[in-house]
Amino acid sequence: MANTEFSYVKTFESNDVLPPSQWIVIRIDGRGFSKLCIKYNFQKPNDARLMHLMNSAAERVLQAFPDMVLAYGQSDEFSFVLHEDTRLFERRSAKLSSSVATMFTAEFCMGWVDAMGVEVGGDGKLERPWPTFDGRCICYPKKKIIRDYLAWRQADCHINNLYNTTFWNLVLKGGMSGTEAEQELKGSVASDKNEILWSRFGVNYNQELEVWRKGTVMYRVYDDVGGGGGGEEKGVDAKSKSQLEKERKRKMKAKIVQEHTDIIGDGFWEKRPYILATRGAE
Amino acid sequence: MANTEFSYVKTFESNDVLPPSQWIVIRIDGRGFSKLCIKYNFQKPNDARLMHLMNSAAERVLQAFPDMVLAYGQSDEFSFVLHEDTRLFERRSAKLSSSVATMFTAEFCMGWVDAMGVEVGGDGKLERPWPTFDGRCICYPKKKIIRDYLAWRQADCHINNLYNTTFWNLVLKGGMSGTEAEQELKGSVASDKNEILWSRFGVNYNQELEVWRKGTVMYRVYDDVGGGGGGEEKGVDAKSKSQLEKERKRKMKAKIVQEHTDIIGDGFWEKRPYILATRGAE
Amino acid sequence: MANTEFSYVKTFESNDVLPPSQWIVIRIDGRGFSKLCIKYNFQKPNDARLMHLMNSAAERVLQAFPDMVLAYGQSDEFSFVLHEDTRLFERRSAKLSSSVATMFTAEFCMGWVDAMGVEVGGDGKLERPWPTFDGRCICYPKKKIIRDYLAWRQADCHINNLYNTTFWNLVLKGGMSGTEAEQELKGSVASDKNEILWSRFGVNYNQELEVWRKGTVMYRVYDDVGGGGGGEEKGVDAKSKSQLEKERKRKMKAKIVQEHTDIIGDGFWEKRPYILATRGAE
Amino acid sequence: MANTEFSYVKTFESNDVLPPSQWIVIRIDGRGFSKLCIKYNFQKPNDARLMHLMNSAAERVLQAFPDMVLAYGQSDEFSFVLHEDTRLFERRSAKLSSSVATMFTAEFCMGWVDAMGVEVGGDGKLERPWPTFDGRCICYPKKKIIRDYLAWRQADCHINNLYNTTFWNLVLKGGMSGTEAEQELKGSVASDKNEILWSRFGVNYNQELEVWRKGTVMYRVYDDVGGGGGGEEKGVDAKSKSQLEKERKRKMKAKIVQEHTDIIGDGFWEKRPYILATRGAE
Repeated sequence: MANTEFSYVKTFESNDVLPPSQWIVIRIDGRGFSKLCIKYNFQKPNDARLMHLMNSAAERVLQAFPDMVLAYGQSDEFSFVLHEDTRLFERRSAKLSSSVATMFTAEFCMGWVDAMGVEVGGDGKLERPWPTFDGRCICYPKKKIIRDYLAWRQADCHINNLYNTTFWNLVLKGGMSGTEAEQELKGSVASDKNEILWSRFGVNYNQELEVWRKGTVMYRVYDDVGGGGGGEEKGVDAKSKSQLEKERKRKMKAKIVQEHTDIIGDGFWEKRPYILATRGAE
Repeated sequence: MANTEFSYVKTFESNDVLPPSQWIVIRIDGRGFSKLCIKYNFQKPNDARLMHLMNSAAERVLQAFPDMVLAYGQSDEFSFVLHEDTRLFERRSAKLSSSVATMFTAEFCMGWVDAMGVEVGGDGKLERPWPTFDGRCICYPKKKIIRDYLAWRQADCHINNLYNTTFWNLVLKGGMSGTEAEQELKGSVASDKNEILWSRFGVNYNQELEVWRKGTVMYRVYDDVGGGGGGEEKGVDAKSKSQLEKERKRKMKAKIVQEHTDIIGDGFWEKRPYILATRGAE
Repeated sequence: MANTEFSYVKTFESNDVLPPSQWIVIRIDGRGFSKLCIKYNFQKPNDARLMHLMNSAAERVLQAFPDMVLAYGQSDEFSFVLHEDTRLFERRSAKLSSSVATMFTAEFCMGWVDAMGVEVGGDGKLERPWPTFDGRCICYPKKKIIRDYLAWRQADCHINNLYNTTFWNLVLKGGMSGTEAEQELKGSVASDKNEILWSRFGVNYNQELEVWRKGTVMYRVYDDVGGGGGGEEKGVDAKSKSQLEKERKRKMKAKIVQEHTDIIGDGFWEKRPYILATRGAE
Repeated sequence: MANTEFSYVKTFESNDVLPPSQWIVIRIDGRGFSKLCIKYNFQKPNDARLMHLMNSAAERVLQAFPDMVLAYGQSDEFSFVLHEDTRLFERRSAKLSSSVATMFTAEFCMGWVDAMGVEVGGDGKLERPWPTFDGRCICYPKKKIIRDYLAWRQADCHINNLYNTTFWNLVLKGGMSGTEAEQELKGSVASDKNEILWSRFGVNYNQELEVWRKGTVMYRVYDDVGGGGGGEEKGVDAKSKSQLEKERKRKMKAKIVQEHTDIIGDGFWEKRPYILATRGAE
């Protein structure tokens, strides 16, 4: 019918299936959040309500997708890690990134009143343009590299937070203008910034809250001793459908924890080997 | 610093820039909207409030992106057409699809109360899971083909709406169960359905509202005689920055109209040649 | 069996089908031809035997693939243009580029003796490393743009040939070293080079052979008046299998001509509209 | 100049860089080799001269690309494995596949006379269409998977060779027609074929030459005890340019061996861990 004549246009849709056996990161980033921070008068260098809203949106996303093994967030970004064997949405890139980004956006917008309401009052009511987040998929072929990816984001968190903490101390307590503070920090290294914080403002950076220095990592924990994040130790191919369904339910029921801790070193991962567990040796 | 050691992971990000000189369709689709229609008790076969909410979200999106020349929507989907010369987000596919899908999602969720509030009352309050939309980009290389794409969506609208209208008349007025109605319609062609509607329910399908039969097309209209959708007639390369900025402003100020009309035939396009106007002959 | 256990590795093969309705250029380039020119003592700035070998290899390729509408070559490169509707090898990119590049390479190597033999004698016998050509596919969505692509290659031919002609006159007749000639030409524009050629060496560049100034364009010609390169004027979908087969045979039998003429202006194309003929208006 | 106006067409070239940290297989396949086998009257089920020509072409390719760690061939196909860290041709897919396929094709065509000449005499002279090979790249993210890829090809060799050996015994010694032999083998499993070979023709399949049953694997061997295929054990980033150059030379000088042995089991790999050696633990 009418449909037949035009349906050839479907052949223009490109195949965007991501290759197998790759950890998939879906990273979402706030669009135009500098303006948003000014508009809603967020605290500098960090705003606790914004962080809580980001984290609670992310937890909802992690909860909704059992194949996500971990999420890491800082500032206005979050990275969601899908297991290398996931078949979610047949691994179609646009479907994955837009599903996660829209769910995160919806959680963020709809959670705003609760997260901000009381403190900010009528002035803080969310107005257009609504906050949104873009999303993208990135593939990482090996356990070591997905760990390096997460380390990269956490190192970025540290660097930015040290800079921002120093900058805003110079401005808010030191009476500098933004431009002056920027000038002051040009070319400075980490130890310079630590020194400025300590000598001028009595701030020991290492005693700042870990949530700002480390960001937030989220993952599932299981009650059953011996744990394991879903029995990845057995081959997927060898699993019956009912086993897979059982695992899915187990993941859906698992408690999700939020921590502000180092994920660069080996400690975190050695204590929780099930998070990145794979079938057989890599 | 710390960043250097890990920043090699950036090299895993794939280049997803769409090729030049292609009309870009960003199509968004509601995720799990059958459940949503049941949960919020939407009218069958079509719900006016849902349609208004979809359309008003789409108009906001069209308003926000001056390089979009047209949007077409029906049911729980919308297609946004970017001009073949657009440089929006450097034509990066994931950025384009996720930015549009998240903005649409935010508009839809945040507009819910206004669109549904009064009629549905407390029972209709939006609850989790929030409605979301996935998004994807598709490239069309020629004016004829982007028109065929839009024709394909409108033909799809027609086919689905005729089916749904007949199905729900059989169920709601004819007292059939869903399964019975489905059985009745199996293998029927358009004329069969028209006949059922007319002979059993006195419904003349061609007098059904055009919004249901044709869906909604949106585009910018300009006051200035001689119109033109932004002077695409001149080469982009030949345009100064100030000209481009002027055009952008002109588009931002232009009025957007919503129509429920045929876009399969030539009539619509012949009256509004500026919508798909390109530099030089194709 | 054994195969089942391992055949999952097939899923790692990526889909490299090129999008529909795009002219496909397969461009092949000689690998390491500067060395080859020195090794076999080719004439400077241009070697007639090399050009004849290139052209005869290209003609064989054009002959073998009826969906190729045109080939254009200069120096050690050739561009083969496949019709935008071609379904050759299901439009798989690697299959297309490697099939053409290997056939060209085989023709070049196996044709060497005939092309070079007599003149060069025993010294010119082809030796390892055998000459090879890499290949790649590029998609062009519109007739105007595929013409611009070909114009780009011909403009490149002109620019390089003017440079090389001047350079080698300075070296061979003017007694300069390569470095001196390079220095002399630094920053010079076309008119400067024309002037050097004329005033110092009595060479009128515009009277140089067209094969060097324009490169070589190849295409099919048909005896039957009214011509047409294969009846693209009718819809492919509308064609019966026997019609398609008839056209294929007609193309296989068609004579291929080699010309050294301008393909930048409209003249060439206006006289041979069938070469880039498409179904319906673009 | 002229070039500027048209050079925008370069932007249509797609980025085809393969992702990092993936073993790259370049597999080449003979085009239309069934016809070729008939035309040149090759021995059935296997022809030694063809095999030697394939292997000697492959060895030349392996020799030419130091980043290739291994090649495996059978029938009219060869797979070349590039180390996961290779930066050859910036990992551009079309460049890689076409360079290897054209070099293999040139070696095959130019080596024909030596490989076939004496035995076949004037009748065996290579004629058009010249033999060619298409090529493609496939990425494998893990050592285990690249091993499974090679196992897949060797299992394929076994299955095909057992079938062909039985088929041609039925035809050549058993007096069956091709169709009859095909019918006889329909639905048969390995043990059936072994039984046919043994009981009817006194052929013990396991005593057939390993070159037919296992295909050919090629790799570099090093004189220096402690070996190692190029010091991959150290980080590439940590290597100086002179170290890299030294390794490259070491590889170029290394002897290449051809073996017809099992590469499915662990034995082969445990004895030669350097072949797939990587930096650090996977």
